Amino acid sequence: MKKIEVVQDILEANESIARGNKQLLDQHKVFAVNIMSAPGSGKTSLILKIMAQLKGKLKTAVIEGDIASTVDAEKVQEQADAVVQINTRHMPESCALIAAMVDQALKSLPLEELDLVLIENVGNLVCPSEFALGEHMRLVISSLPEGHDKPLKYPMIFADAHAVVVNKMDLLPYVDFDLGAFRRSVEGMNPGVTIFQTSCKTDEGIEEFSSWLLQQVKAGN
Amino acid sequence: MKKIEVVQDILEANESIARGNKQLLDQHKVFAVNIMSAPGSGKTSLILKIMAQLKGKLKTAVIEGDIASTVDAEKVQEQADAVVQINTRHMPESCALIAAMVDQALKSLPLEELDLVLIENVGNLVCPSEFALGEHMRLVISSLPEGHDKPLKYPMIFADAHAVVVNKMDLLPYVDFDLGAFRRSVEGMNPGVTIFQTSCKTDEGIEEFSSWLLQQVKAGN
Repeated sequence: MKKIEVVQDILEANESIARGNKQLLDQHKVFAVNIMSAPGSGKTSLILKIMAQLKGKLKTAVIEGDIASTVDAEKVQEQADAVVQINTRHMPESCALIAAMVDQALKSLPLEELDLVLIENVGNLVCPSEFALGEHMRLVISSLPEGHDKPLKYPMIFADAHAVVVNKMDLLPYVDFDLGAFRRSVEGMNPGVTIFQTSCKTDEGIEEFSSWLLQQVKAGN
Repeated sequence: MKKIEVVQDILEANESIARGNKQLLDQHKVFAVNIMSAPGSGKTSLILKIMAQLKGKLKTAVIEGDIASTVDAEKVQEQADAVVQINTRHMPESCALIAAMVDQALKSLPLEELDLVLIENVGNLVCPSEFALGEHMRLVISSLPEGHDKPLKYPMIFADAHAVVVNKMDLLPYVDFDLGAFRRSVEGMNPGVTIFQTSCKTDEGIEEFSSWLLQQVKAGN
């Protein structure tokens, strides 16, 4: 039983730090989105598309979580008003961002100048669902090639999301993906969820999603 | 520091149980493959293709690891000589199979009748790399839509693999994937690795991979 108790301690400590992060964000009227998905679902591509749409409307920073490498931080550097890279490889939790890492990242950002922080979590459909970061919104991206059964296999992360983006819609002719079955699974476990369909290649749904996000940020700040 | 010590204990205990699993498998001349990938890379589809190729040549069981659901076990049931489903949702480790779960599964299989056990791990590129299961081979599947940068971002799992399968080759015309860059990344961190290119839709590379696996099983048993 020893391990379970310790895990409980960690999760409680994480909740407390996450609450602190949220207070800090609220003081500065900064809205934070925790973006989660499997590896390669298009988190970074979607972040780039959102920033292009919101340019001139919001000041946006990105916190990039990754096991190793700065590949994604380099990609978003030009578009973002600020970027922080977190590499989790040698940290006690490597499979997800935890609130303490985001706390450090927030302290290095010019919060007084920002409206929005996009937090790109580690590519993983399991661990990130366990760790609150202090975010205002949890966004899950699921891409067509992964298959429509993902909500059934990773229910925790889908059940707890404010919004789900079905990405890589351009691949619909080439993969077996039942959009109706996917939507029914997600809505069954998460009745209030908002679902978007996007492609970062054809720009399908990008404007609609970005406008919705802008509304949420304005309502939240 | 408390947590790190406990994690160390867990990993040591896991190694010890994994050694026991391997002994049990060796006693029965059963070869075990630990199949790892991100969610939706095609583990189950590849398992189905391998079993079709090896039908009549090897007796094969499948151990299906998943957070929740029996979706995959149902798919492989008809082709496999035996199937065991492990759901990790309410276990202390939910993001990967651990040796103790495989120990339980092996005890419910007719090992004396089997040649090969295919262990489908939880869809995750982080946690499964930490837990030995007693397998003879670690196989990582990476699919084209995930992008060629995955080895850079999840180096542990690629560095430690005996073989890597690049799956969903049929999508090459529709996604941005640099095969050369992918191969160079993997071979740079894992010089002895064998890399295959497959499609479970067009059957590209399936026969080649299955023949190679058959050789490995015969050499190992």
